Amino acid sequence: MATYVLVHGAWHSGDLFEGLANLIRAEGHKVHTPTLAGNRPGDSKRTGLDEAINSLTDYFIENGITDAVLVGHSYGGMVITGAADRLPEGTIRRLVYWSAYVPNNGESLEDISPKFVRDMHDSIQRDDGSILITFEGFREFLLNDADIETARHWHAKLNPHPRKTMQDKIRLTRNPAEMPIGKSYLHCQEDVCVPQSAGGWHPQFSEKLGFFRFLSMPGSHDVCFSNPELLARKIIMAGRD
Amino acid sequence: MATYVLVHGAWHSGDLFEGLANLIRAEGHKVHTPTLAGNRPGDSKRTGLDEAINSLTDYFIENGITDAVLVGHSYGGMVITGAADRLPEGTIRRLVYWSAYVPNNGESLEDISPKFVRDMHDSIQRDDGSILITFEGFREFLLNDADIETARHWHAKLNPHPRKTMQDKIRLTRNPAEMPIGKSYLHCQEDVCVPQSAGGWHPQFSEKLGFFRFLSMPGSHDVCFSNPELLARKIIMAGRD
Amino acid sequence: MATYVLVHGAWHSGDLFEGLANLIRAEGHKVHTPTLAGNRPGDSKRTGLDEAINSLTDYFIENGITDAVLVGHSYGGMVITGAADRLPEGTIRRLVYWSAYVPNNGESLEDISPKFVRDMHDSIQRDDGSILITFEGFREFLLNDADIETARHWHAKLNPHPRKTMQDKIRLTRNPAEMPIGKSYLHCQEDVCVPQSAGGWHPQFSEKLGFFRFLSMPGSHDVCFSNPELLARKIIMAGRD
Repeated sequence: MATYVLVHGAWHSGDLFEGLANLIRAEGHKVHTPTLAGNRPGDSKRTGLDEAINSLTDYFIENGITDAVLVGHSYGGMVITGAADRLPEGTIRRLVYWSAYVPNNGESLEDISPKFVRDMHDSIQRDDGSILITFEGFREFLLNDADIETARHWHAKLNPHPRKTMQDKIRLTRNPAEMPIGKSYLHCQEDVCVPQSAGGWHPQFSEKLGFFRFLSMPGSHDVCFSNPELLARKIIMAGRD
Repeated sequence: MATYVLVHGAWHSGDLFEGLANLIRAEGHKVHTPTLAGNRPGDSKRTGLDEAINSLTDYFIENGITDAVLVGHSYGGMVITGAADRLPEGTIRRLVYWSAYVPNNGESLEDISPKFVRDMHDSIQRDDGSILITFEGFREFLLNDADIETARHWHAKLNPHPRKTMQDKIRLTRNPAEMPIGKSYLHCQEDVCVPQSAGGWHPQFSEKLGFFRFLSMPGSHDVCFSNPELLARKIIMAGRD
Repeated sequence: MATYVLVHGAWHSGDLFEGLANLIRAEGHKVHTPTLAGNRPGDSKRTGLDEAINSLTDYFIENGITDAVLVGHSYGGMVITGAADRLPEGTIRRLVYWSAYVPNNGESLEDISPKFVRDMHDSIQRDDGSILITFEGFREFLLNDADIETARHWHAKLNPHPRKTMQDKIRLTRNPAEMPIGKSYLHCQEDVCVPQSAGGWHPQFSEKLGFFRFLSMPGSHDVCFSNPELLARKIIMAGRD
């Protein structure tokens, strides 16, 4: 039926989406789960946003992917936006932002985050340029709807993320609202990583899409680990024509 | 048990609510689904808000309806507000606003909508005074939680709506908050036709009711077509004493 | 497994939580449901906030409770905040605010409520210093997701509440955000007792917790009476490590 490309967020990698991908495959779709530059074993932790975006456009070209539903989670929203701007017409059928950042031209992830995020990143910055969310932060903020064993299981699989990808300002020829393809925003109701008083994921980022399809569901930021079944259904609802 | 009068929104007509009405009837209630002036076959597309309101009050009188739960959807919220102000005491037991506009005296639907709505209406205005939502607008904005076949099925049943009903300012002797009857607001969580950054359906319109009962449910603006079972249950929860 | 202490809100008493407590006990936990000073039979309706807080800390000491998950509902959020500040380290493992007020030092419940709440309290104030929510207020505002028989059943069990507890400013050595224990906020989506335009329970009060775990669920302010099963599950999700 359709081709989905699932793009992970910071600290994550494509293999962590295998369970989710298999649930979407079970509905008859083709699903790719690439890992971005900066998050692959051995990648430099000085990797920047351009390299991450290029690693995704390269993946499309190497795998001959066209007419795809491109799904970005969290930081992945930065990367799918850049890739959609660079890939030839016909490559992407629809963009799906799932609890994801939506940048306009010239904005970095840290630019569009509240100050406490930059402060938190400062506090966990390592000498090699990477940051890694603490277990406490992951458990309370990203996987608040799972039990602690589930949180421990998944936190152990995270990888240090190159902070430069969050500080580099994205270069776009068009902002997402101007891109002539379908766009959807999938919002998780128990995800307050972006504080609601600061605009939240929704409506702050969703409305930057201009004309878009909105979907909402219960669950945390990493609902891929706490309720992949419902997430798979909602991604299909967000991604279909 | 109770008598429900379901008042449709722009582009819709009473017959589109038959499925919903039957689900409420199955719980033992009497349900009316009138079609407002301006949306009936052969109606002038220059019909104004007063005529639409009068067509509803006439319907009450012709059918001898008293002690009714009057439910308005979307634009129907304008019409039930006007009818509640004009009908004699005892005719209406409770007003239920389901994803509906709540006007105060002197306000038109377009007055209380963001500018992009007026611009969109300008762009689709026809010579006969009517506007008809595009399929793309309907599919992405009004029925975002259904598949495309369902969206095509229902879009084909819509009728051009007299824009004048959206531009006429309502004349009320009392604002809704001052009306001495029960009021409920039913909010659909995936309905972002009124952008949340502009106040959303809730709390922007709900709180104009003053003292009111709030209900919330998953679903799009036209959840009558995507999940009528849950909607029927929620309308009964909103409408009961 | 864990020890839960459930602290009721205004007009309520611990015995009203027996159904909820039994559902949590059925999952293997120990559950206490104390009634605060001011809400026990024979208590003076001039009881102040300090006395209510002291009655809770006394309950902990008398029952030798340590390492507890302390859950506050509504006004109970004032009381658990004060108790957490006064009880020795190790007594409380985590604070759970369920549709609850979160005060900082020097704030009273009425200070952090919109003016219409103070006006409503003025209108129902009795000579003995107590206030009692009307049946209409309870049915529409606190138990909007239940039928009227359920609302009548529970309203009859309420007791007049000492208004002084809502007017006294809390004395804290640390604000909740600075307390070195876990904190969770459980938000009910159909609870609009605190108007959303005024900030709502969430994010207005939730974000005063600083670093906290967020949970959300369908239901009204008194979902303890309309859906205790789901509430019990969510309290456990909010309270576990």
